[in-house]
Amino acid sequence: MKAIVFRAPETPIEVADVELAAPKAGEVRVKIAAAGVCHSDLHVKRGEWDAPAPLVMGHEGSGVVVELGEGVTSLAVGDHVVLSWVPPCGECRYCRSGHEARCQKVATVVAPKGVLFDGTSRLSQGDESLHHYLGVSSFAEEVVVPASGAVKVRDDAPLDIVAVVGCAVATGVGAVLNTAAVEPGSTVVVIGCGGVGLNVVQGARLAGAERIVAIDVRADKTALAVQFGATDQIDASQVDAVEALFDLIPDGVDYAFDAIGRTSTTEQAIRMLGLGGAAVIVGLPPTGAKASFEPLVLAEADQRILGSNYGSVRPSIDIPALVDRYMDGQLKLDPLISARRPLAEAAEAFEDLESGEALRTLLIP
Amino acid sequence: MKAIVFRAPETPIEVADVELAAPKAGEVRVKIAAAGVCHSDLHVKRGEWDAPAPLVMGHEGSGVVVELGEGVTSLAVGDHVVLSWVPPCGECRYCRSGHEARCQKVATVVAPKGVLFDGTSRLSQGDESLHHYLGVSSFAEEVVVPASGAVKVRDDAPLDIVAVVGCAVATGVGAVLNTAAVEPGSTVVVIGCGGVGLNVVQGARLAGAERIVAIDVRADKTALAVQFGATDQIDASQVDAVEALFDLIPDGVDYAFDAIGRTSTTEQAIRMLGLGGAAVIVGLPPTGAKASFEPLVLAEADQRILGSNYGSVRPSIDIPALVDRYMDGQLKLDPLISARRPLAEAAEAFEDLESGEALRTLLIP
Repeated sequence: MKAIVFRAPETPIEVADVELAAPKAGEVRVKIAAAGVCHSDLHVKRGEWDAPAPLVMGHEGSGVVVELGEGVTSLAVGDHVVLSWVPPCGECRYCRSGHEARCQKVATVVAPKGVLFDGTSRLSQGDESLHHYLGVSSFAEEVVVPASGAVKVRDDAPLDIVAVVGCAVATGVGAVLNTAAVEPGSTVVVIGCGGVGLNVVQGARLAGAERIVAIDVRADKTALAVQFGATDQIDASQVDAVEALFDLIPDGVDYAFDAIGRTSTTEQAIRMLGLGGAAVIVGLPPTGAKASFEPLVLAEADQRILGSNYGSVRPSIDIPALVDRYMDGQLKLDPLISARRPLAEAAEAFEDLESGEALRTLLIP
Repeated sequence: MKAIVFRAPETPIEVADVELAAPKAGEVRVKIAAAGVCHSDLHVKRGEWDAPAPLVMGHEGSGVVVELGEGVTSLAVGDHVVLSWVPPCGECRYCRSGHEARCQKVATVVAPKGVLFDGTSRLSQGDESLHHYLGVSSFAEEVVVPASGAVKVRDDAPLDIVAVVGCAVATGVGAVLNTAAVEPGSTVVVIGCGGVGLNVVQGARLAGAERIVAIDVRADKTALAVQFGATDQIDASQVDAVEALFDLIPDGVDYAFDAIGRTSTTEQAIRMLGLGGAAVIVGLPPTGAKASFEPLVLAEADQRILGSNYGSVRPSIDIPALVDRYMDGQLKLDPLISARRPLAEAAEAFEDLESGEALRTLLIP
């Protein structure tokens, strides 16, 4: 099959012929309908994260189940699925206590080693084994994933739209509803209005936030954020974002989401907090980047800094619920998809992202 | 009356004659039975914190109500009380949503300005007005405080012991039960086994933690922590605390409490976390001190950094409950009190604390 293989930072992105082995016990094969290109893929492509190369890229996508491995009873051939880049093992102490996004087997085996649960890969080129990326590798015609990584969704949901639920929407909306558990009447600021940030904005709207301040260096993106529910905009290319926030909300905010993940934006988010406020780290920085805070202020003002991995979602519960919210008109997804391209145009899809123009480009195999 | 007045950093601590005005509406006058000397007082004495001088020191204590201001119905003359350095206003959005330790009126008026709710002080020397310290000023024969800052406790509780519930116990146990909400079976590390740290240890025991690792640079203090419920000890004067912790618990811990509040201990606490772990800032550093963390690690491992102000307690609920736990034998308080001295020996009480020998010295007016 055709797939996008990453071998080393900043080498050209090309379509390659790749072999995909049959699913083993507990796994399924999914024919990809659409796969979104995310900043995490870009971090890998630039060499900013340690990823086990060579690998087949992509960690967001949707498709149709075409083959079941031994013992799989939770899915059937023909099921429409959204892929989850955390396939919960269901057995570790985190899965068992309702924190599937922290699954120990995913965090210690699947993600860092680029393999499936049994420690091996289903991907290869000739004699060479290729790694899975985050247990998914969706920039391909097909994937083999653990059954818990293919989440069944309703058949009437358009696969070339709900693909984005698997990462951008789960991460953004989940950070609001699960990680932070924003209460009605809260004040919220969102730094960065890209694919994830806009989902933080609409998550805050769903949570009943009273003020939602959208910040970006591009005024077209904060304007789009208003369509997603933002009540105020700050153009950070023109003003100091922290000063402008305190001009709008003198007491500081209850929740500040950093959907960018630079040291500067993380520290801005922390400085924007009021009494009892929480800064939520949603956007991810390069490996080794540090941010600082004043422990005295954090303690005296009873504040919190919350890391949010995958929006703290429980994939089998939250992904179908997010798809339902889209179908009910509560969540906007269509405006998030700025382009659809064939797999052969993966390089152009990355250029879309790097230019800052794109929200989400979907690759259609 | 006699009281300890602070005028400038590192000036001698002496007993002075001070006038105390009658309680205004909503306030009460309390005759002090005992007042504990805390590291926060030491921070003020050293000039490490901005405190509105001149002030009467002390923010922990117990006593008996001797006079009611107009309209006070929640207390009666003769009631035994423990003083709370957060007297909740009951009206702000934080008090109304169950977060009394974040009370906005305390955080913006009482604490920073060194006054009571109406913006004035009841303390003076001749023509000069003196500030209240954290709305308490317990290093004195009597205090006038808002009625919500004098919390009625059972008459059979010894006042010269339960005085420490007002700060050390509420802060330490509250950080575990309220701020962090430690679950049964959790793994916990506590850095610093002084007056607050030992209360974190016994809070973790009450919460049902499975492992409680006590760390201090003094082996006598970690040995005492074992009496309070610690399961393991690390002598940080001999080994690298982070390495030693991972030797004991290879996956890292669920909760790491920094009961010291140095940049180095805060950063150690963060580095000791496992998947989904929370670092809790309980000890307080000097103004302006910073600590750093890796946002990528915090986000990918779904970790949190939690500031804990006054153990996130609701004084009128938690303080009587803590006193009940002491009377029921669930909480150890007696070993926390390392000395009792008359008010005239306040300077010696500070020396006890600075030497690292003392846990809590109580001043008895």
